[in-house]
Amino acid sequence: MTYCLAIKIDDGLVFASDSRTSASVDDVRTYGKMHVFEYPGDRFFTLLSAGNLATTQSVLEHVSRDAQVGAATSLRSVSSMYDAAEYVGSLNARAQRRISEDRGEHLDGLGATFILGGQIAGQEPSIYLVYNLGNCITTSPETNFMQIGESKYGKPILDRVVAPHISMEDAARCALISLDATIRSNISVGPPLELLTYKRDSLQTGKRMRLEADDPFFRDLRDSWNAALTEALNEMPRFPWEEQQISQPNLQQAATQMGGEHAPNR
Amino acid sequence: MTYCLAIKIDDGLVFASDSRTSASVDDVRTYGKMHVFEYPGDRFFTLLSAGNLATTQSVLEHVSRDAQVGAATSLRSVSSMYDAAEYVGSLNARAQRRISEDRGEHLDGLGATFILGGQIAGQEPSIYLVYNLGNCITTSPETNFMQIGESKYGKPILDRVVAPHISMEDAARCALISLDATIRSNISVGPPLELLTYKRDSLQTGKRMRLEADDPFFRDLRDSWNAALTEALNEMPRFPWEEQQISQPNLQQAATQMGGEHAPNR
Repeated sequence: MTYCLAIKIDDGLVFASDSRTSASVDDVRTYGKMHVFEYPGDRFFTLLSAGNLATTQSVLEHVSRDAQVGAATSLRSVSSMYDAAEYVGSLNARAQRRISEDRGEHLDGLGATFILGGQIAGQEPSIYLVYNLGNCITTSPETNFMQIGESKYGKPILDRVVAPHISMEDAARCALISLDATIRSNISVGPPLELLTYKRDSLQTGKRMRLEADDPFFRDLRDSWNAALTEALNEMPRFPWEEQQISQPNLQQAATQMGGEHAPNR
Repeated sequence: MTYCLAIKIDDGLVFASDSRTSASVDDVRTYGKMHVFEYPGDRFFTLLSAGNLATTQSVLEHVSRDAQVGAATSLRSVSSMYDAAEYVGSLNARAQRRISEDRGEHLDGLGATFILGGQIAGQEPSIYLVYNLGNCITTSPETNFMQIGESKYGKPILDRVVAPHISMEDAARCALISLDATIRSNISVGPPLELLTYKRDSLQTGKRMRLEADDPFFRDLRDSWNAALTEALNEMPRFPWEEQQISQPNLQQAATQMGGEHAPNR
């Protein structure tokens, strides 16, 4: 499986993805799912992919080739982000149809979804989710992030925290926490993680990081988040019946601790 | 949809569930999904249900009736929690088979899953997940909670925080936070919520709460958790490139604050 997400904030865009691909539990591979197409000063795109690996690679191959050879329709030629998303959707649908046609029957399991984000000079930065069918949707002020793949585990933190006014770095931290939640809860999503920030109107890659599982910054972030959640739980409101019990457990705890100091370790 | 969960800790068991049932988006109803069967001093069970409402009601009807009439196999007669779970599984499979047989064809969409937790006098408290097929699994020291229904959104907080040594009330708070995460991210799960705690060896209901959306305690918990997460995000490690930028935003912020004191409110 896969988990990729993109966030749109006032300052720009944040992209994040994992790198695990599994045909089955005994065929797990590592493939980057973040692909950048940048034409500095003119336009910038990041394409995130999830789903059938043959389909996503076919789409990427055509996106790259069309741009290189100057095809009539390519990421270099499209006149809006919407047209760019429709173009990716069209490649997606065609890649799947070709395989089914070659086989002479409709095949399941070829599906792929994409997130296309970026900016064309003079236009608004934007993010599109390109569905398996080839159609697409964009963000709204209320829903300013998009997810593909194994998206449920990492959604609550985004729902709670992501808002247009947050800083690029807070959005990036939030994206990594969302990915970490997914990694902890689902073995089919795994590091290395990729993270990219895009500053509005820069028309080029901002910061880009590749984080291995043992990356000190990522480990620090994970540990800090874990500690913060545990601490947060300790500070949550008490149930009505706890107020009356407070003196008793405290006494018990104190007694246990006193005993512990003098008792041998077990 | 539905989301129910049960947690096993050293001190006992915690059960929580939502109450939303939807045949489709225009047929949303409220049904409790937490059903208690207690025989004080002898045995205590809580049954949580998810899935096809007709199937779950059929199972509940038979569980209640078998216990009342003193059937050969019932929650009153089974000699272990495992047997109790197999009994519920058997009722589950039979309820689905009967409908398919009456129709003369195999029908999809009749499936239901259950969590059965409780304790029989002299035995260990335990939790079983009863699958749609009628088979069942129990917890382990490493996996000491079970979820049914829309379980992914609420899993990360459980994965991070739930451990055998935590207090009953912390486990209960964690269960409510897990439910709240699911409610925020998925419209098909909704209040009122039900919460029940069972103290080891008590053989009867501990605390039981029904929380409406506007319940002051639940609202306080939700708001506190939101605030704690936002605060936690502010305290996360900085990216390497942020260290160099720190002086600049601080100055900007200071300037804005100074201006703000003398400027009219907008």
